[in-house]
Amino acid sequence: MITLSSDFGSPYPAAMKGVLLSATDAQLVDVSHDFPRQDVRAAAFWLREVLPYFPPAVHLAVVDPGVGTDRAAVAIRAGDHALVGPDNGVLVPVARELADGSFEVFRIDADDPESSTFHGRDVFAPAAAAVHEAGVDAFHERERFAPADDVVELTFPEATVTDGSATGEVLVVDDFGNTITNVPGTVLDGRFGGEVTVDGESAPARRTYAAVDPGQRLVTVGSHGNVELAVNHGRGDDAFGLEPGDAVELSV
Amino acid sequence: MITLSSDFGSPYPAAMKGVLLSATDAQLVDVSHDFPRQDVRAAAFWLREVLPYFPPAVHLAVVDPGVGTDRAAVAIRAGDHALVGPDNGVLVPVARELADGSFEVFRIDADDPESSTFHGRDVFAPAAAAVHEAGVDAFHERERFAPADDVVELTFPEATVTDGSATGEVLVVDDFGNTITNVPGTVLDGRFGGEVTVDGESAPARRTYAAVDPGQRLVTVGSHGNVELAVNHGRGDDAFGLEPGDAVELSV
Amino acid sequence: MITLSSDFGSPYPAAMKGVLLSATDAQLVDVSHDFPRQDVRAAAFWLREVLPYFPPAVHLAVVDPGVGTDRAAVAIRAGDHALVGPDNGVLVPVARELADGSFEVFRIDADDPESSTFHGRDVFAPAAAAVHEAGVDAFHERERFAPADDVVELTFPEATVTDGSATGEVLVVDDFGNTITNVPGTVLDGRFGGEVTVDGESAPARRTYAAVDPGQRLVTVGSHGNVELAVNHGRGDDAFGLEPGDAVELSV
Repeated sequence: MITLSSDFGSPYPAAMKGVLLSATDAQLVDVSHDFPRQDVRAAAFWLREVLPYFPPAVHLAVVDPGVGTDRAAVAIRAGDHALVGPDNGVLVPVARELADGSFEVFRIDADDPESSTFHGRDVFAPAAAAVHEAGVDAFHERERFAPADDVVELTFPEATVTDGSATGEVLVVDDFGNTITNVPGTVLDGRFGGEVTVDGESAPARRTYAAVDPGQRLVTVGSHGNVELAVNHGRGDDAFGLEPGDAVELSV
Repeated sequence: MITLSSDFGSPYPAAMKGVLLSATDAQLVDVSHDFPRQDVRAAAFWLREVLPYFPPAVHLAVVDPGVGTDRAAVAIRAGDHALVGPDNGVLVPVARELADGSFEVFRIDADDPESSTFHGRDVFAPAAAAVHEAGVDAFHERERFAPADDVVELTFPEATVTDGSATGEVLVVDDFGNTITNVPGTVLDGRFGGEVTVDGESAPARRTYAAVDPGQRLVTVGSHGNVELAVNHGRGDDAFGLEPGDAVELSV
Repeated sequence: MITLSSDFGSPYPAAMKGVLLSATDAQLVDVSHDFPRQDVRAAAFWLREVLPYFPPAVHLAVVDPGVGTDRAAVAIRAGDHALVGPDNGVLVPVARELADGSFEVFRIDADDPESSTFHGRDVFAPAAAAVHEAGVDAFHERERFAPADDVVELTFPEATVTDGSATGEVLVVDDFGNTITNVPGTVLDGRFGGEVTVDGESAPARRTYAAVDPGQRLVTVGSHGNVELAVNHGRGDDAFGLEPGDAVELSV
């Protein structure tokens, strides 16, 4: 199985599918091609949220603002999974999650891609097919993969949690407008049903969107386990006036 | 085969795919993840339009404004098909269509989902995989499924058709802006090529969009068999000033 | 393998999938359902860019502003591939590319489609399944296919290239806003790193988006081999004030 993730929209991912299907009989599964454009951190967040639900697979993931520069291309072995993409940190949080800690990084030798602007098609898809055909355990024996000395790191900022308050930031906003922070959902333990304060304004803490009336704001814990600022049948980002990277103060 | 339908956009459906593929080798087919947000009636309409074209399959469909409340989760046997989703009516019109009348409803026992906001991943996908593995004929013998006494109904409003006029409403607007009413297309029998009146204004009745000039309005019968208000190479909803739920008066 | 391409958005493509899966066990691969609406030339461009990366397959492609008129439905044999869609030129550039020149065209006998507005479901999907089941080499022996005397042609306009300048036009704008012209990328040979002039204004010629600062314009060669007007981390169409069909003057 090979999963595909990118910020390519349409129809560029189809060229990657064609390359993959020309080289392997693997089942292809689209994860998303609508990641926020060139937002490496958002993509890293979503990959870490979603890929661990998959059975062992090769995961091709391309969000690559440095395409055509000298950033490396990497294949990462992480537990029973392999990850293929640019060496810009996008694969690191999910690699750590899948491997339960340390993981192995290999550089992809990609000389002379056909295009300097579409490495998804010309570098990463062929490499993902090669990893799949060789197997997650054995691909590193192939000539085009060489052990890497290091990898570009990416860590999400950590929230500061004290007794009664938390200072964090918005990591991503999902398609619904749900505003996902880096504040761990545990700060709301024992607070559900009551009110908390977000950036100085009060809002109800509830377990589910439907616990407030349509159009009303709430503070909840999303499926990712973090504090999420939302509106039932509406957009939390608009209602709270927040976007990715903004600081958030929460008092409970 | 398992089909997937939701209003989740991207990338949440991928988590459902991961859960499904971890539990079954079934072929997965995306129907849509862009149903109008939390619009149960629109989703029910589209499911009824599209799913009957599929061979026997398990259909996972999640449009679920009541997620996390005490609304039940159900699996429905309808002819050779099974439907899995929330008990909010979204599955009922297509179940009636697939079963050619009566169908059987089972409650899904879903204690302690991992998340109270993402039952698509934590409740419905595991249930759909279980239905698929047990088989459409036999899944009800599994412990997690129990016969349901009732089901939340959903019926589309019926248009009032008299000789020479029809009073109905807009059911859904598609991605093209085509405005689909509940008025049966048969009211246009014998009227194609002539003019009809929509909310007091005249418009040509035509069998195909291309029968009027680009940018011109028309009244036609869509692939669903209902009267549709459209614009060739344009948006019917804008041109007719209508949105879902609005009343429509048609004189022929 | 059957690939699917259209401008249908969502959820209409699912009805085509249902029809296909009812008639064949072929693997289905979505190319795109977000081609610019009813823009035959743009679809023809993208099909030519993407489908040649696929292994031999049946390609169903429906962008069909003339649906319901007397335009023909065709199946084309092009090398090891077959193409199925409307006879409006959309399949011709990719057919020429796949066949490396000449290709064979067959008319699809499609009497009485269920709907006059959804031939993707009622005419083209059944025909694509029939082509797949009979095989690319043999489908023309089936009764519903008859040799066609001619085909509606579609050729892209050619740029005028002289020593030091090129006059062309914008063919398509991709989802990123990258503005793809018909000017061959070879006009930039030896110019990378320097400045060129677009419609009288200077812009840097660079091999990669990341070679200019975020928000800055550049002139590059896209993965399709043509000159592309872009903005690093931004939209080239907005920055250059261009849309499909606009003329472009390039001085190098």
